[in-house]
Amino acid sequence: MTTLNIKVYRDLMGANEKWAKKTRSLLKKRNVTLLNLIGSPGSGKTLLLEATVRRLSRKLRFAVLEGDVETTRDAERLASANCMVSQLLSGGACHLEAKLVHYALRDLPLDQLDVVIVENVGNLVCPAEFDIGEHGKVAVLSITEGEDKPAKYPLLFREAKAVVLTKQDLLPHLEFDLKSCLNFIHQVNASLPVFQVSALRGKGIGAWINWIAAIHREESGA
Amino acid sequence: MTTLNIKVYRDLMGANEKWAKKTRSLLKKRNVTLLNLIGSPGSGKTLLLEATVRRLSRKLRFAVLEGDVETTRDAERLASANCMVSQLLSGGACHLEAKLVHYALRDLPLDQLDVVIVENVGNLVCPAEFDIGEHGKVAVLSITEGEDKPAKYPLLFREAKAVVLTKQDLLPHLEFDLKSCLNFIHQVNASLPVFQVSALRGKGIGAWINWIAAIHREESGA
Repeated sequence: MTTLNIKVYRDLMGANEKWAKKTRSLLKKRNVTLLNLIGSPGSGKTLLLEATVRRLSRKLRFAVLEGDVETTRDAERLASANCMVSQLLSGGACHLEAKLVHYALRDLPLDQLDVVIVENVGNLVCPAEFDIGEHGKVAVLSITEGEDKPAKYPLLFREAKAVVLTKQDLLPHLEFDLKSCLNFIHQVNASLPVFQVSALRGKGIGAWINWIAAIHREESGA
Repeated sequence: MTTLNIKVYRDLMGANEKWAKKTRSLLKKRNVTLLNLIGSPGSGKTLLLEATVRRLSRKLRFAVLEGDVETTRDAERLASANCMVSQLLSGGACHLEAKLVHYALRDLPLDQLDVVIVENVGNLVCPAEFDIGEHGKVAVLSITEGEDKPAKYPLLFREAKAVVLTKQDLLPHLEFDLKSCLNFIHQVNASLPVFQVSALRGKGIGAWINWIAAIHREESGA
C-alpha cells in the first residue's frame, strides 16, 4: 500500500459515511431494519433470498435491493418470486456505496416495510469495508469455497453479525471439514452465530428467518 | 460513482501502470512469461496450481507468487509440493498492485525461470482492473458458482486470455448447465479458450499445461 492509496480510502470513506449516517436516520424514523448480505460470486446469496422470500413474508413485510456490477438477472429472479425488489448497478465498482443505497431506499414505500435486505456485489473483500448504514452485515459463505476463507478474508467475518453457510446439500460430495470451518470462523469472531442452510432443499431456512425477525424486534424495540 | 471516486481510481492506475511497464521490460530482458490467475475466493486457484506444479515442471522452469489478503496458507501448500513460491500479502487490499509484484519478481532467480504464475487475491472484480505487467490474465471459475458469472462480472472475461472452469468432478451433483455457461463466456469474449478441469482428479490438466507452454513459446519467440 502506498501513502497515496491510504489517503484515497480515507476520502472515499468520508463521503460514504455521510450517506450511511443519513440512511441510519431515515431507517430509524421509519422503523425499518437494514441487512447487508455479503459473499463471493456464486456463494448462493440470491438463492438464499429466493428461499427466504416466501417464509419471511408470513412474519414481516420486506423488500430486497439487488446489487450487481452488471445485468438485472438477480432482480428478475426475485421479482418472479413475488418479492418487492430494485436493482442497484454499481457501474463496474466492486461494492455498493452508501449514496446509491440511500437513493434506492428513499424510493421504497418504507412505511409499509419492516426489513430491507441488500444483496451486495459478489465479493468477499471490498463490500466489507463500506458502511451502507445497515444494522448488520451478514456473511454468506458456501461450503464449496473451502474451510479457510474466514482466516484468509477476515474483515467481513470480524464485522458480520451472522454467517450463513450455504450449499449444505453438497456436503457428501466435498472434502469439506465443517468443524474446521466453524473453528476458522470463531477464531476471527468468537460469538458469531452460524446458520447452516441448503436453500435448494429448504434446510435451515427457519432458524435464519427467526434470526432476521429477532434482529428487527431488537432494532425497532418492538 | 462520485466524481471523487473516478479521480481516485485514475491516480491509482497511473502509479500502477508505471510499475507494470517496468515489469514488462524486466520480463522481456529475462525471457520470462508472466500469467495472472484471477477468480473468486474458493474457486480452486491454489488446487489448480498444486495439480499444475508436478506436470509443468517436466516442461518448463517456473515459480509462483501467491497473493492473499492475509495468512501464508496458500504459499505453504505450494511449497510443500516442491514449488518455488513467494507469498504476497496485499495488506487488506482486494487486489495485487504492480509495484508489489515487481519487487517480488526482482527477488526471483529470473535467469533460471521460464514462467511465473501469480495467484491474485480471491476476487472476481477488482484484480481484473489492475495491470501487473502480465502477458495474460487467466480467469478461474468453478462450476459451483453458477453459469451466469461471466455476464454478471464481464470485465475479467473480456480481458482474459483463457478460462479454467474448475471442479468438474462436482458436475453430477449440481444443477449446472455447462452449455449455458460456455454461451455466457463466449457472449462476453467469443474467442476465449476454456479448459474444463478437475484438479482433484487430474482431469483436463494436460491441455491447460500445453496452453501455458504455447503462450511461453509465443511470448519468448522460442
